[in-house]
Amino acid sequence: MTSPNSTLPAPRLGEPYLLTPGPLTTSFPVKEAMLRDWGSWDDDFRAMTAEMRRRLLAMLGQGAEDFDCVPMQGSGTFSVEAMLGSFVPRDGKVLVLANGAYGQRTVQTLEYLGRDHVVLDKGDYLPPRGDEVAQILADDPAITHVVAIHCETSSGILNPVEEISQVTYAAGRKLLVDSMSAFGAIPLEVAQVRYEALVSSANKCIEGVPGFGFIIARKSELEAAKGNSTSMSLDVHAQWATMNKTGQWRFTPPTHVVAAFLVALRAHEAEGGVEGRGARYARNRDVMVAGLRGLGFETLLKDRWLSPIIVTFFCPEDPKFVFAEFYALMKAKGFIIYPGKLTVVDSFRVGCIGQMDEHVMRQVVAAARDTLAEMGVKSATPPARALEERAKLAA
Amino acid sequence: MTSPNSTLPAPRLGEPYLLTPGPLTTSFPVKEAMLRDWGSWDDDFRAMTAEMRRRLLAMLGQGAEDFDCVPMQGSGTFSVEAMLGSFVPRDGKVLVLANGAYGQRTVQTLEYLGRDHVVLDKGDYLPPRGDEVAQILADDPAITHVVAIHCETSSGILNPVEEISQVTYAAGRKLLVDSMSAFGAIPLEVAQVRYEALVSSANKCIEGVPGFGFIIARKSELEAAKGNSTSMSLDVHAQWATMNKTGQWRFTPPTHVVAAFLVALRAHEAEGGVEGRGARYARNRDVMVAGLRGLGFETLLKDRWLSPIIVTFFCPEDPKFVFAEFYALMKAKGFIIYPGKLTVVDSFRVGCIGQMDEHVMRQVVAAARDTLAEMGVKSATPPARALEERAKLAA
Repeated sequence: MTSPNSTLPAPRLGEPYLLTPGPLTTSFPVKEAMLRDWGSWDDDFRAMTAEMRRRLLAMLGQGAEDFDCVPMQGSGTFSVEAMLGSFVPRDGKVLVLANGAYGQRTVQTLEYLGRDHVVLDKGDYLPPRGDEVAQILADDPAITHVVAIHCETSSGILNPVEEISQVTYAAGRKLLVDSMSAFGAIPLEVAQVRYEALVSSANKCIEGVPGFGFIIARKSELEAAKGNSTSMSLDVHAQWATMNKTGQWRFTPPTHVVAAFLVALRAHEAEGGVEGRGARYARNRDVMVAGLRGLGFETLLKDRWLSPIIVTFFCPEDPKFVFAEFYALMKAKGFIIYPGKLTVVDSFRVGCIGQMDEHVMRQVVAAARDTLAEMGVKSATPPARALEERAKLAA
Repeated sequence: MTSPNSTLPAPRLGEPYLLTPGPLTTSFPVKEAMLRDWGSWDDDFRAMTAEMRRRLLAMLGQGAEDFDCVPMQGSGTFSVEAMLGSFVPRDGKVLVLANGAYGQRTVQTLEYLGRDHVVLDKGDYLPPRGDEVAQILADDPAITHVVAIHCETSSGILNPVEEISQVTYAAGRKLLVDSMSAFGAIPLEVAQVRYEALVSSANKCIEGVPGFGFIIARKSELEAAKGNSTSMSLDVHAQWATMNKTGQWRFTPPTHVVAAFLVALRAHEAEGGVEGRGARYARNRDVMVAGLRGLGFETLLKDRWLSPIIVTFFCPEDPKFVFAEFYALMKAKGFIIYPGKLTVVDSFRVGCIGQMDEHVMRQVVAAARDTLAEMGVKSATPPARALEERAKLAA
């Protein structure tokens, strides 16, 4: 479990690396910050909340002063629901750009919330493109908001939010971005990409532990959100108003998780912010993808669409490859990988985010090589129909 | 900060005790359990979730097999909202028994959820009694559910849930209990008190850290809850169904907080369960109340209504007593106390729950004595109108 060449400390002796898109492997100092209790209304903790909000907001770059950051208790999905329920008026209509589980979850959330919506469903992994979004918006003037998934972790695709934003605002509509697994590692500066709100969570690219998410939204949208929410707990406007007035969260915050996140945010800055973090993840991806391709594995996506967050590989055709066995043997070697989510062909996923670097990724490749040998899998080549499936994707 | 006579370890050198109803002071082993990362879909973590649910359920005593436990991400308020939105049908009507902030918060939540309701508002601290509840139910046959606050921490009163339950079921209605600050220290066994569901959270009497709550509900109510919720994240039925099918939480759980809670649950059992925990808190209260009364302070409530959770004291009449100064001087001595919430007279609160015992409570009394002396407060006697206010409360 130690990585002698790594510049990062092992998370802890004997603890497996989580090669997954959250919960992920965090640093020991991040976890160590949880070794004390905080009073959530006390000045010390209020200062922590303020620092956290300021640091997150700064990642938006120039123009950030028009936005504010509202943390929200619960998992990332709670924050997505809070964003949708607070910023889409009750008589609004949403176009959801779906190409995987998180797009589908947004659709389901809108159904619960009773907000009108249409879906551009691109299936398992094909990206929603600007021209088709423009067409739908032109055909349906009732649509008020577009929701895009920044990185859809079901496949690992990095969706083209910049071109989506351009056509959305060209048509006079508003963009909401689910940047859950991307924010902090992939730039989303407001000077480059226009949007009204984004959402992410503590235990993604900032490398905190799970327990809350956050919404970053334009102040004018936060003002306008008053009265929209049909949930008391998930009312972004009320959380924002209380926090700006008192410095406190409206209801008990996960104090230890916040303390850990603050350490993670400082480490993020020390690593060079979004750029530095993104560069490490890109190296993780490059080393891991090259290594697994060297063993005969094939990625679902062509290089252009591969995110530095998580990568989907086809399962080998060889009948000796059984995913549950591969998972167990990889876990025994210290690496927890992730099942696939494709509906058409069998697949698995390997995450690039968390406290890991290219040295760890080389160990992952070596572990996969040894595991294939133990299982008696001669070739990692996927079935022909997997490659036919991939051929549908433009370069 | 150390307590030489205490059988409990100091939480950490230099860290103040939180004399508050959550976040509260937790043991070091509880926090230490957060020093590793867990994959939330992995077998190891699923086993932790299962153990947690089993242990919580066991606290209901005989008849627990008709109930199930559903943890829910977010603060305790999120769990209360989840309970209300999932178990009260959209055409239901709720009688809220309010005598403080948490009763009022339930009213506000029902307004957000669009569920019809009436309120028996007893003001700052007077208890809702069985006969008046029975009268309201008799007068309004549309009421389907009664919501009671077990311990209302705004005043610290222990409300008479047993007599409320009796009249509720005698009238053929259903009871939902907000036992947030009481569960785990005050018995709520289903053989003694009938109810359909209760809610509590990780960082109350079980002494975990904050980050999730849990709903314990009758299985027949869980089944019937399908389709009631207008929130995706807070749908108790869906969380329950997914958890029973897959062993996983529906969305990312606060893994570290869950790991800490499991250590807390095992410590709770080792202390003698609900009875042992309740006995320590009762000793905490008795020592602290006797000590502060010895300094001239007066409690808001008469002894019969004093909970072993948190106690409200009137602020002294002496103009040299300024609460902000008292708070700061107590904090400097290692004790964080809690502001009061009464609307009529000035008050403050001292919590009895968390990793503290009677030895720590003696130090609290000594710190209060020294602080009064430093502030030049000659007498801790409250103003006459505070005592007049208290006289309204039956013995």
